[in-house]
Amino acid sequence: MTAPGHLLDTPHHDGSERYVSQAHPRLGDTVHLLVRVPHAADVSSIHLRSTPDAEPKFTPATLTRTTAADSWWSVPLVMHNPVMNYRFLLQGGPLGYQWLNGTGLHDRDIPDASDFRITTFEAAPAWSANAVVYQIFPDRFARSAQAGDRDIPDWAIPVPWDEPVAGRGPQTAKQLYGGDLDGIIDHLDHIVDLGADVVYLTPFFPGRSNHRYDASTFDEVDPVLGGDAALDRLADAVHERGLKVLGDFTTNHTGVGHDWFRAAQSEPDAPERAYYFFDGDTYASWLGVPSLPKLNYDSEELQEQIFEDPKGVVRHWISGPHALDGWRVDVANMTGRHRAQDHNADVARRMRAAMAETNPDALLVGEHCHDFSLDAMGDGWHGVMNYAGFTRPLWTWLRHPGHAPDFLGLPVIVPRLGGRAVMETIREFGSLVPWETLTHCFTLVGSHDTTRVRSLVGDHVEQVDVAAGMLLTMPGIPMITYGDEIGMLGDFGEDGRRPMPWTQPDLWDERLHGVYRELIALRHTSKALHAGGLRWVYAADDVLVYLREHPAQTALVTLARLAHEPIRLPRAAFDGIEKGSAAYGNGISLEGDAVVLTAPGPQVGVWTWQPVS
Amino acid sequence: MTAPGHLLDTPHHDGSERYVSQAHPRLGDTVHLLVRVPHAADVSSIHLRSTPDAEPKFTPATLTRTTAADSWWSVPLVMHNPVMNYRFLLQGGPLGYQWLNGTGLHDRDIPDASDFRITTFEAAPAWSANAVVYQIFPDRFARSAQAGDRDIPDWAIPVPWDEPVAGRGPQTAKQLYGGDLDGIIDHLDHIVDLGADVVYLTPFFPGRSNHRYDASTFDEVDPVLGGDAALDRLADAVHERGLKVLGDFTTNHTGVGHDWFRAAQSEPDAPERAYYFFDGDTYASWLGVPSLPKLNYDSEELQEQIFEDPKGVVRHWISGPHALDGWRVDVANMTGRHRAQDHNADVARRMRAAMAETNPDALLVGEHCHDFSLDAMGDGWHGVMNYAGFTRPLWTWLRHPGHAPDFLGLPVIVPRLGGRAVMETIREFGSLVPWETLTHCFTLVGSHDTTRVRSLVGDHVEQVDVAAGMLLTMPGIPMITYGDEIGMLGDFGEDGRRPMPWTQPDLWDERLHGVYRELIALRHTSKALHAGGLRWVYAADDVLVYLREHPAQTALVTLARLAHEPIRLPRAAFDGIEKGSAAYGNGISLEGDAVVLTAPGPQVGVWTWQPVS
Repeated sequence: MTAPGHLLDTPHHDGSERYVSQAHPRLGDTVHLLVRVPHAADVSSIHLRSTPDAEPKFTPATLTRTTAADSWWSVPLVMHNPVMNYRFLLQGGPLGYQWLNGTGLHDRDIPDASDFRITTFEAAPAWSANAVVYQIFPDRFARSAQAGDRDIPDWAIPVPWDEPVAGRGPQTAKQLYGGDLDGIIDHLDHIVDLGADVVYLTPFFPGRSNHRYDASTFDEVDPVLGGDAALDRLADAVHERGLKVLGDFTTNHTGVGHDWFRAAQSEPDAPERAYYFFDGDTYASWLGVPSLPKLNYDSEELQEQIFEDPKGVVRHWISGPHALDGWRVDVANMTGRHRAQDHNADVARRMRAAMAETNPDALLVGEHCHDFSLDAMGDGWHGVMNYAGFTRPLWTWLRHPGHAPDFLGLPVIVPRLGGRAVMETIREFGSLVPWETLTHCFTLVGSHDTTRVRSLVGDHVEQVDVAAGMLLTMPGIPMITYGDEIGMLGDFGEDGRRPMPWTQPDLWDERLHGVYRELIALRHTSKALHAGGLRWVYAADDVLVYLREHPAQTALVTLARLAHEPIRLPRAAFDGIEKGSAAYGNGISLEGDAVVLTAPGPQVGVWTWQPVS
Repeated sequence: MTAPGHLLDTPHHDGSERYVSQAHPRLGDTVHLLVRVPHAADVSSIHLRSTPDAEPKFTPATLTRTTAADSWWSVPLVMHNPVMNYRFLLQGGPLGYQWLNGTGLHDRDIPDASDFRITTFEAAPAWSANAVVYQIFPDRFARSAQAGDRDIPDWAIPVPWDEPVAGRGPQTAKQLYGGDLDGIIDHLDHIVDLGADVVYLTPFFPGRSNHRYDASTFDEVDPVLGGDAALDRLADAVHERGLKVLGDFTTNHTGVGHDWFRAAQSEPDAPERAYYFFDGDTYASWLGVPSLPKLNYDSEELQEQIFEDPKGVVRHWISGPHALDGWRVDVANMTGRHRAQDHNADVARRMRAAMAETNPDALLVGEHCHDFSLDAMGDGWHGVMNYAGFTRPLWTWLRHPGHAPDFLGLPVIVPRLGGRAVMETIREFGSLVPWETLTHCFTLVGSHDTTRVRSLVGDHVEQVDVAAGMLLTMPGIPMITYGDEIGMLGDFGEDGRRPMPWTQPDLWDERLHGVYRELIALRHTSKALHAGGLRWVYAADDVLVYLREHPAQTALVTLARLAHEPIRLPRAAFDGIEKGSAAYGNGISLEGDAVVLTAPGPQVGVWTWQPVS
């Protein structure tokens, strides 16, 4: 019997090349949209609903093609505005009237939030479409031979590489393990071997902490990390291997040690005073942490310094022969927002424009820890860190029942939920932004700020495979935090900032390492996995199944968090699947007129084929 | 047996005085929020989630009071930003983890769109909180004795008062029945008797059509309506009776006959050229209708003329001894939007500011025919016409199965749905804006642009009672289109613009007229109905039940579109209901430990009481 509740009879559209004729139209262009309607859906007419100049407009779609399983309807959309939101009205069948939007079918009127969206904004750099990012916390990744020669800053407590981190307490931010940029160069082979191709460095500007999110200047690389010359060497080494490298810039605040802040604090008449929010001797700071004074974008002079000055932070480091390939922006969500002031969208757009002018091939991704819908339409950040629509739903599925993970320090639990809720959460958050944004968001199973995935799953180490499987088969730019690939532990952000145990093979889970290696290689070589749409097929408590569809290849992905009974899906719905084969794992097989999914335990399965229609 | 699926065990919060300590806080103020938790909900802790400066923050709530039925939790919210969105995280019970937002409970993470919202914007005029609006299409309401003396404009086709309207065709906009402003004065008694207290006039500026949405000037009242002096007389007569009067201004466009457009068209160097979107000889217009050229708010001079000039349209007509009491804005949703240009929010804010400066007691309501969430945060329009969250869901419930109503000319059907979908649609659209906006939206069962409600329901005339019942017991500013109260027919907008049949008693449904009169009186005198929150109690195919809760009074409202079996609800959930009584209809009774709802056919029931806790 076919699995009840599967979604293969549900009409589908998404923003990918399989369904949209043109990813980057200009204003006034006509884009052609396709809707796939399985015959069982019994649809007699389709209208496109768009809202040019915010007035609803209905355009009838045309039935253009019929295959064994589906009818294909086509409808033109004129790019009347820079952001066009649209959905489809399906009429006919027993329900009579249904909307199809980014969260599926709805039999009553709905708001526009989950409409599909396409924009006329410039495309993100082409290289980012098939990127896998490796996040490095420079103090903890690797020490070069030269690292010992450098002066220890006055704030720092030097710690031997193999000593456990002090996760909480006054020492936490002061412990200096002494990792440096040349250390990263020494270990680029590890990254290349893993298959990641973008190195993202958490801040390299000097500060008064090991995390360096409290920059004392944006003009130089911390000498403890090897200084400017070491970053040049790293950029060159990275580029020689065909990789990219991203920096990390705190648009929201500086450290109290920053030149601007010292000038502002010591001299009420200093022009830098306007860069911050002073009220007498007090000032606004990030979440009230006094070492992190908040920048005030009311100051046009500040904006000039940051965005326009060729020697300013945004342009300088992505220019010249050793240019970085883009920026990750810290606290992007709060940037430019303070009480009645909100420059957030302007800051994002201005940073994007400055980068486009300086280095059009540079990527811009903003940190965002919750609903990013209004901040990520695509004219500012290319994408955001998709905590809300990826990390959290994945955690609710894979967190160990006995282990409450720590999500960015929030005082409330992350629940454990079944697959249906996980699918709905991923789908809903994904529906809020243009496809171009979604595919340029960092997907992540954790970061230097959260519980590590190996600790998240508790005893079920194979569930890390499942997390990695989802990470590497979903739309987005997968970001792997250094050490996740070898099963590094960490109960919370600071606890997970452990030194990479280069000389302690017992801390390396080589089986898991192989899983990451294989999944990354599969993603890079599979057009469906790195460029396909996302069509949900099935979700139950312990199973998630979806298709990634590209004109050149389809991939069927099945993820099991635990063992489950075999699931039978109608083979006729997977047009041409018999011409393909298993690309990863053993969980998918063909039996007569069925596609059968099996799992004796936590498991990832991928099957790829060339679609015949 | 108690009705399965009732919502009386569901925790509740809304933006009303029952649940929020202060409706109009200032920046920095602390507002206290209450959550009502029925004991059956089994909640062990509650956190408020807000997002100051767009960063999530969790504040624990305190259990402050326990009554027979409920626990009451309280939590402070600091107004850090002008718009604070918030929701509640409920922990405990079998589900473990639930979000409470404007659409109810959710057991997985959700975006912020349906968060509750409170703002620091200035309050809307106090009089509007208990207003009932009567919409008049001046050409069709009443002719005064003087009307026959006036010159017929060259565009017009004079028609006798009792001749049927030409709903479609070249004559439709040209038929001039000759209603005028003095005619309205002659019939103010009808409006006072009905109980409406705001007269909203569709445009009175001269144009080249009977609807006058194609203004040829904003400087004078159409002489056909009696000119400026007649408007002064009408304003005075309205005010003498303690009523208010609103005008209708097309911010989006003028007529081709407008002085500005004629100057712009005849003289390419005219400054007015910049008021429109010219491209050679062609120009942008409303939905491509050439007689309605679209205004271009890139022009600061245009904005000055409209918003700042004391003799300009916005300020002039709401100033002086015969001042209007506010504006309804036509095509508000499209205003200022054209291709890559979007001044919509600025136009709305500027109009609001200009009105606040000129006449702080004036109301500003924008036309909006679909999802208004991003356009109605409350710093621009006080409210919008709530077609999306009221008219359409009501229509889907009450439309005759054999009659497909015409909604603003859209080429797709309005479906017929059960009460659950209707409740969900009303609740979802209502959740997208601050409570202050929702309560200042015009609710309407139709307008001069749609099918009339009497035609909507087909043979079931008592279903008009149900429509009126919902209109007059829901949050919002009820707007009644002239003639609806006597059962005037109209298959679509123009067909419904029939002359008010003053001398044809057979066209007056006096029973229905009485229903309207009684429901309006009830609303005006019931604090719960005009100022209470909205708590849904029950929804099934043919029944909708909700509570309106105010500290001084609770109202239980039940609406039946058809006969239904008795519905039994637990009386203990309605604290103090036995001290109250039926305020309208016979559908609600108390039997032992139950509140019983009965309906032998379409029916409205209201029971009011003073809450004891």
